Amino acid sequence: MTDCIFCRIIAGEIPSDKIYEDDEVVAFLDIAPVNPGHVLVIPKAHYPDLLALPEQLAVQLVIVARKIAPAIITGVGAAGFNLTLNNGVVAGQAVGHVHLHLIPRFKDDGRELWSGQPYPAGEAAVVVEKIRKQL
Amino acid sequence: MTDCIFCRIIAGEIPSDKIYEDDEVVAFLDIAPVNPGHVLVIPKAHYPDLLALPEQLAVQLVIVARKIAPAIITGVGAAGFNLTLNNGVVAGQAVGHVHLHLIPRFKDDGRELWSGQPYPAGEAAVVVEKIRKQL
Repeated sequence: MTDCIFCRIIAGEIPSDKIYEDDEVVAFLDIAPVNPGHVLVIPKAHYPDLLALPEQLAVQLVIVARKIAPAIITGVGAAGFNLTLNNGVVAGQAVGHVHLHLIPRFKDDGRELWSGQPYPAGEAAVVVEKIRKQL
Repeated sequence: MTDCIFCRIIAGEIPSDKIYEDDEVVAFLDIAPVNPGHVLVIPKAHYPDLLALPEQLAVQLVIVARKIAPAIITGVGAAGFNLTLNNGVVAGQAVGHVHLHLIPRFKDDGRELWSGQPYPAGEAAVVVEKIRKQL
C-alpha cells in the first residue's frame, strides 16, 4: 500500500497538518481546501471506499467527524459545514483510501450545491421499484 | 414539530417514495433529485442537525446509508455515489431536520465537485493552531 498517499501520511512518510488522531482514525487538513479548515477524516487501515470499509470503522469516522466539527467551525469562524464522502472515481473520489470531507462554510462563500429537478410523472415509482428489487 | 415537512412525511401526512424504514430511521426519494435514485436518510426523531443528533442516531444513519447504497447503485445502474450532509442554512441545508443525501453518480453526468486551492505559505499552520485550540 506504499503507493497510497494517505497510507504514507499515516506512516509519517509524508507530512500533514493533523488535528486529530486515535488508534483507528486520523484527521488532517486537505492540502487544497475548498475553504480554510477543510479537513479529511480517514481510517488508518487502507480500505478503498465506504462499502469496503468494515461497519465499525465507518461508524468511527462519523463519530470523529462529529466530535471535531465544532472545534473546526469555531476555530475558523464558519457558520456551518458540509460533510461529504465521494465514493468511486465517477463521484470525484481522488484518492483510493476512503475519506470523509468536512468543509467549513461561510456566508456568501460562493459554493453552490447541485440543483435537482422533480421526476417526470410516474418515474419516481419506477425508480423506487428498481431499488426495492435490490434490497 | 408539525411544520417540519420530514416529520409530516414520517407521520404519513405527506406521501413519500420510501425505500427503507426501521424503528429509528427512514429513507425515501428526494422529490427534486440531483440524479435518479437520489435518496434522503433521516432519523424519525426530529433533530435540527448533526451536532444536535445523539451519537447513536448519527451512527444509525450511516449504517443505514451504507446498507442501502448498493441496492440504490445497482437499481439505477450508477457507478458510484456522493454521501453528503449539509449542516446549517449556510451549507445549503434546506430542511431543518437532519438528513443524509445519497446521490447516485453516472459517468459524464456533468456534476462537478468544488475545487480547492493550496493554502498560502504558512497559512495551514495558522489554521491548524486555531482548530487545535478549540479541541
